[in-house]
Amino acid sequence: MVPSLCPVPLEKAYRLLNHGPTVLVSCRHDGVDDVMAAAWVGVLDFMPPKLTLVLDKDSRTRALIEAGGRFVVQIPTVAQRELTLAVGSVSLNDDADKLRHAGVQLLAEPEVDQPLVAGCSAYLACRLIPEPHNQQTHDLFIAEVTAAWADPAVFRDGHWQFETADPDLRTLHHVAGGHFYAIGESVGDKSQE
Amino acid sequence: MVPSLCPVPLEKAYRLLNHGPTVLVSCRHDGVDDVMAAAWVGVLDFMPPKLTLVLDKDSRTRALIEAGGRFVVQIPTVAQRELTLAVGSVSLNDDADKLRHAGVQLLAEPEVDQPLVAGCSAYLACRLIPEPHNQQTHDLFIAEVTAAWADPAVFRDGHWQFETADPDLRTLHHVAGGHFYAIGESVGDKSQE
Repeated sequence: MVPSLCPVPLEKAYRLLNHGPTVLVSCRHDGVDDVMAAAWVGVLDFMPPKLTLVLDKDSRTRALIEAGGRFVVQIPTVAQRELTLAVGSVSLNDDADKLRHAGVQLLAEPEVDQPLVAGCSAYLACRLIPEPHNQQTHDLFIAEVTAAWADPAVFRDGHWQFETADPDLRTLHHVAGGHFYAIGESVGDKSQE
Repeated sequence: MVPSLCPVPLEKAYRLLNHGPTVLVSCRHDGVDDVMAAAWVGVLDFMPPKLTLVLDKDSRTRALIEAGGRFVVQIPTVAQRELTLAVGSVSLNDDADKLRHAGVQLLAEPEVDQPLVAGCSAYLACRLIPEPHNQQTHDLFIAEVTAAWADPAVFRDGHWQFETADPDLRTLHHVAGGHFYAIGESVGDKSQE
C-alpha cells in the first residue's frame, strides 16, 4: 500500500463516491498506462461494493479496461483541477505523452498491479464485471471494488473530514466545460452515519 | 408546466445531474403516488439524455416504475433536507400516508402526467428503457429524459447559479445515515461551459 494512505473497509467504500464527486480512472494493461477523468460514475451496491462507469468508445482507457479488466477509480482534489481537466481533454490516442503533459505522477500499488494517480484523496481498485450488452449499447461498465484506500487527512474512520481538512482536499464536482463546484459545508448530523 | 419553472433544453439536461446531487424519484401509477430519495443516480448519455438509477427491490417506487414506465427525477435543496431524509427512510409499503408525514406537496405536471415534488430546484421527466437483466441482477434502471425544468432562481441559461442564489437552494450530496454536504464554491471558468 502507498505509505501515505490508509485502507478503507470494503463495506464503507461506497461512501467515497456517494456524494457524487468527479473521478479519475487509471489503468495499466500490456505495459500501457492511461488516466482519464469521468463524472459519470456511480455507486451500484454496498457489499460487495460495486460501481458503474460510463466510458466513451473513443477513450484509450476504455480499450485498456476491456482488455485487462482491472482499473482504479480515484478521487481528485480541488488542487488537482488542472490535472483533472487535462486528462479529461486529451486522449492517449492523440498524445502518447499525455500523462506527462498533464502533470500526472503515478504511484505503484503492488497489491493491485495498477497505477494510482498521486495526490488524490481516495482510491478504489476495481475488477470489471463483463456485461457486453451494457458496454456496447450504453457505454456502461460495471465493476466490483476489490480494495480501497484514502488519505487520512480528508477521509478517516469511515467519514469524509471536509469540515476540518485543508480546503485543497475537497472533492471536485464537474458541471460542464471545465467548470466545477467544490463540495461545500456539512448539512445534518454526521454522528448518525 | 408548473408556473414557477422554466424549461431546460434537453441537450443541457445532463448538467442538472453532472455534479452528483442526491435526488428524489417520484412516480404515479394506477392512482398511487410515491416519492423516494436516491443518491445512486448518474448521467448515462447527452442526447437523447439518459440516466441510470439504482432502485432496491423493497421500494414501492420501483414497483410503480416497473409497472408504469414513467417517473420524475428531481433535485432537492438544502431547505428540503428533512423531507429528503423522511422519504428515504420509510417505504410506502409500511406507511400508506408516507408522503403527508414527510411533508411532501405534489404538483401536477400535465405534460408528463406524473407528480412533481414542490420546492425542488430541477425536474427531469423520465421514460424507462426496459432492461430486465440489469433490473433483476443489479437493481439498475436506465431511462431516457423526455423533458426537464428548473427553478430559474438557481438554474438558468443552462448553468447552475449557486454563486448568487439563495444558499437554501444548493444541492444536497448524501454520504450516509442522514449526513449530507451541500454543494460549495465555484472552481474554474464558468464561461467555458
